[in-house]
Amino acid sequence: MSSTIFDFVGGTSGEWEVLKMTTLKGDSLSEITHIDKISSSLVRGNEGIWTLKGIISNLRYTEKAEKEKLIAIQEDLGRPSASRAAFIPLRKSDEWWNLAQDERRKIMEESSKHTQTGLKYLPAIARKLFHSRDIGEAFDFLTWFEYAPSDEEAFEELLYALRKTEEWTYVDREVDMRLLKG
Amino acid sequence: MSSTIFDFVGGTSGEWEVLKMTTLKGDSLSEITHIDKISSSLVRGNEGIWTLKGIISNLRYTEKAEKEKLIAIQEDLGRPSASRAAFIPLRKSDEWWNLAQDERRKIMEESSKHTQTGLKYLPAIARKLFHSRDIGEAFDFLTWFEYAPSDEEAFEELLYALRKTEEWTYVDREVDMRLLKG
Repeated sequence: MSSTIFDFVGGTSGEWEVLKMTTLKGDSLSEITHIDKISSSLVRGNEGIWTLKGIISNLRYTEKAEKEKLIAIQEDLGRPSASRAAFIPLRKSDEWWNLAQDERRKIMEESSKHTQTGLKYLPAIARKLFHSRDIGEAFDFLTWFEYAPSDEEAFEELLYALRKTEEWTYVDREVDMRLLKG
Repeated sequence: MSSTIFDFVGGTSGEWEVLKMTTLKGDSLSEITHIDKISSSLVRGNEGIWTLKGIISNLRYTEKAEKEKLIAIQEDLGRPSASRAAFIPLRKSDEWWNLAQDERRKIMEESSKHTQTGLKYLPAIARKLFHSRDIGEAFDFLTWFEYAPSDEEAFEELLYALRKTEEWTYVDREVDMRLLKG
């Protein structure tokens, strides 16, 4: 098993209970009641109703000053107090992927302030990004957030801010699952 | 089979005959006489002496003006005149991967002029980059070049220019294989 490759297995049992599942854009996913997030490999198959595979990679847009701030205040996943999670797989349009690196960076940061917005909610909202596009998965990214029940409103605020940005106009598939640790 | 995932299978038969194999940095690869470059998948195994897997992805550093120049003049792989190839797997150090995006970009372009140097040798030298790091392979990148025998000297010049850059000080494993189309 790898420490960078994870399977998110949706089914009828698992560590995280699904409280709500909403399709915001594009095709939905089959209904499930639980999700397991498990260390996996490229070849491993799984048995749930569906499995989404993602890989932890290096930061592809973050600049030095931002990276230092992130590292200084962000928290790891798995805090005992963080009994709530959100699992939000995303796909961006071909138009996005045809942009050059500086154009994507400009939209993410200068216009959409992606990192700055995320920083405001640290350390309360722990986040992890898993990459799926290059391995031929249905989504480009699997985003995972963990927080205490008392930070749920802050999390809603963070999502609201991100979804109204220019960057989000390039999102063409998005399914939002809210989870409770079992 | 995928159009973005490729296996480079080193063995005793295959489309490309190995003329020379040189280890420049780090561990060598087992000796082989031929390489096959085949459309593959994440789960496919292969039978050569060794197999290196790589994925075609989006350009991660190239800015708009550079990308437009590249697209305007670069040629695809597989030209009938391009009977020579070079297959050069590379790994970069942890120090490189711990840098932020803007620091890596600065070293690649402002200091090392990676794209500008490559552009000088287009369309003669066709190039393709395959990513391996995120899928847990031994190398970070598999680079593949194709050219006509008459452009061999130009190719040596390109490699010489790249290898003396600041960027190359971060390369900690490099094996250079020169190939002849069978």
